[in-house]
Amino acid sequence: QTVESDERALINVEEGISISKDSLFLLNLRFRMQNRAGFNTVSGDLLNVNEYEMRVRRLRLRLDGFVLSPRVQYYIQLAFSKADLDLESGDIAQPIRDAIIYYTFNKNFYVGFGQSKLPGNRQRVNSSGNLQFADRSVVNGLFTLDRDFGFFGYYTFNFPNESILQLKGAISTGDGRNASKINDGLAYTGRLEILPFGNFKNNGDYSEGDIAFETDPKLSLGLTFSKNNKANRTGGQLGQELYEFRDMNSLIIDGVFKYQGWAVLSEYMNRTSPDPITTNALGDVRFVVVGGGVN
Amino acid sequence: QTVESDERALINVEEGISISKDSLFLLNLRFRMQNRAGFNTVSGDLLNVNEYEMRVRRLRLRLDGFVLSPRVQYYIQLAFSKADLDLESGDIAQPIRDAIIYYTFNKNFYVGFGQSKLPGNRQRVNSSGNLQFADRSVVNGLFTLDRDFGFFGYYTFNFPNESILQLKGAISTGDGRNASKINDGLAYTGRLEILPFGNFKNNGDYSEGDIAFETDPKLSLGLTFSKNNKANRTGGQLGQELYEFRDMNSLIIDGVFKYQGWAVLSEYMNRTSPDPITTNALGDVRFVVVGGGVN
Amino acid sequence: QTVESDERALINVEEGISISKDSLFLLNLRFRMQNRAGFNTVSGDLLNVNEYEMRVRRLRLRLDGFVLSPRVQYYIQLAFSKADLDLESGDIAQPIRDAIIYYTFNKNFYVGFGQSKLPGNRQRVNSSGNLQFADRSVVNGLFTLDRDFGFFGYYTFNFPNESILQLKGAISTGDGRNASKINDGLAYTGRLEILPFGNFKNNGDYSEGDIAFETDPKLSLGLTFSKNNKANRTGGQLGQELYEFRDMNSLIIDGVFKYQGWAVLSEYMNRTSPDPITTNALGDVRFVVVGGGVN
Repeated sequence: QTVESDERALINVEEGISISKDSLFLLNLRFRMQNRAGFNTVSGDLLNVNEYEMRVRRLRLRLDGFVLSPRVQYYIQLAFSKADLDLESGDIAQPIRDAIIYYTFNKNFYVGFGQSKLPGNRQRVNSSGNLQFADRSVVNGLFTLDRDFGFFGYYTFNFPNESILQLKGAISTGDGRNASKINDGLAYTGRLEILPFGNFKNNGDYSEGDIAFETDPKLSLGLTFSKNNKANRTGGQLGQELYEFRDMNSLIIDGVFKYQGWAVLSEYMNRTSPDPITTNALGDVRFVVVGGGVN
Repeated sequence: QTVESDERALINVEEGISISKDSLFLLNLRFRMQNRAGFNTVSGDLLNVNEYEMRVRRLRLRLDGFVLSPRVQYYIQLAFSKADLDLESGDIAQPIRDAIIYYTFNKNFYVGFGQSKLPGNRQRVNSSGNLQFADRSVVNGLFTLDRDFGFFGYYTFNFPNESILQLKGAISTGDGRNASKINDGLAYTGRLEILPFGNFKNNGDYSEGDIAFETDPKLSLGLTFSKNNKANRTGGQLGQELYEFRDMNSLIIDGVFKYQGWAVLSEYMNRTSPDPITTNALGDVRFVVVGGGVN
Repeated sequence: QTVESDERALINVEEGISISKDSLFLLNLRFRMQNRAGFNTVSGDLLNVNEYEMRVRRLRLRLDGFVLSPRVQYYIQLAFSKADLDLESGDIAQPIRDAIIYYTFNKNFYVGFGQSKLPGNRQRVNSSGNLQFADRSVVNGLFTLDRDFGFFGYYTFNFPNESILQLKGAISTGDGRNASKINDGLAYTGRLEILPFGNFKNNGDYSEGDIAFETDPKLSLGLTFSKNNKANRTGGQLGQELYEFRDMNSLIIDGVFKYQGWAVLSEYMNRTSPDPITTNALGDVRFVVVGGGVN
């Protein structure tokens, strides 16, 4: 099974429908369904069931491939479950998760234009099919950069000693997926990744657990800085609307180490804002979610 | 044409796209569109047209097949028309109708996990493509169990004299499709079906009309009992939200007889609740839809 | 590349997935994605950026083909971007754009039943993939007939001197796509098109720009009249709800001329209503958008 990347289109996949026509056209069509049943207890002492949660957690349709030439790739992901449509936190159905076109200059450099995941913390960029647990962490939920719409760039340096340096950057709206609010404040995100012992097997730096079983130790360290100007949501790309626009800065440091079936992952996230609190005329308060956390 | 079942995935279909890879993967992709034009008259005496109703009544996309092994089957149905999305009675778009994974132990026993139709009254379980009229009955609308999320089980006994006994059961949330409300009350549904003269041609016990033309008389009798604890909607899986949780019990008896082009179908449904009426602080009343009816 | 028509199903396409089975079944599956990045300046003098607009403008999935016989064609178009779902102007997600079945009597005559574009102004009927600019004009936005649900008919006369006369007509709800409101007022639309110098190359009368490079001059003149009885929206098929039903009449005259790479397009639209203004009990006013404009 190929480990999915949420940072580029997949051209060679073994599952799903795949239709091609010479090197003029390729369409891979796949879907992912995750059903869930669980329960909560009132407290750790009394193990009475308090609530059951049973539902379709994720239901996604993914189309990727290329048009005209293998250099021009596209990646579209639609989502249909209630949580995926953002209908648990809002009223507006949002079926589009990813909709981006990539142009590949050479094997080390490609750029994208559209809506996709920002090069933020590692856990967020991991595809939901590659997580160890069904959901991401609470820290991820509070401070992640999530998805955004804009221009993306990815560059890879290969050093003679097998070390790899990756530069990733994005200029985006800063207002999250399917935003209709527009102002003149953009978000600037840069990320640096160092893989001193070379590439992981099967994109293993972006999956949890060492399923591929690395015979040599592999390490990836990442550092992201993101500046979001005039953001209008409490978490930048996510959260409730603020009463006034605010600037915010995010710092993310993360790493993953895998060796012979063992995997260690950690990430530190921090968000600051010069003036996090906004109020409306009635005195209600909404504030930028500032602070930090460690996974 | 294969008669669709809404109680399992279809593996051999003759229409639509079908993509397979050895016995590792199968995807059938089909859609159904039903357009409607009609009019109402003010009364039976004055045949003046009062209202026109013209619209896309149903537009569905169905994906089913198996992954890894023919034993592991899936069935996904998405719906896009306004009525299908529940946007005529509510605000929240609900594109997912079915999303369930089945595991088949042998030809007589399979279980499911996900969202699908409960083993309730026969007319409800009939696929909308197999109905005699475009819509189901009013009685079905008031008392049906509809769809729910949970665990499903299906067992078939074959007797030496060709008689068949089917046991169907489900443990589900009791709150209907795509519910986000959760409490510790589940719904328990059990159904018994007896086919004393053996199987109908082409799954004819779950289609209306005797299109397959049964040369020997065929009969199926069904009995469903469902107990829904702490339901929060007026009809359990359907209807407005109640102001307080209520328990409710449903009894369904139905039968179908087909012979040489003739078909007779009937069903009796009854719902009771120990305390059907709920009120809120303002004195507004919402009540469980209790009572019964015959089709 | 085939120029898409929004007035019939496409049977021979070269892009996308195409699955057929003898002459019993054909399904073409294609999608269109249009991403956009732009900015507005405060005024023409001060070129400071005032607002950025970056988003997925259009994301569409198109299925067309035939069932049972090549005479019975269908055309379904689903849309998923926020603007496409009508979520910028309203609350109700509307994924269905087109859902229509056509029956073809002969090469000059076919009829349709379902939801599709009315035979209104030329720019509206042009598929969004064939526009010169990313959006249609303001005049189109105010006075177009847009999509509707009902019965459609298309007839073509071929004269011996290569001239062509096309008659197009529709009887529809008059309330726009996915309307649930119903009354006894329908809309009647008729359109006449004259192509005195014969057909354009590659359906060029319904694309902008002369990409096909016409070696001989080609002209098409169109005249549409539409009468919408008891409409309940300010623009008939589009716009806010009126407080009372109103009748409205639309007149459209348009033309396109192409020759050796040059293309000239123009259209005149006019809407009238005998009593355009409606008020509610509180004195609020909503009115039919009457008046005219030229592209």
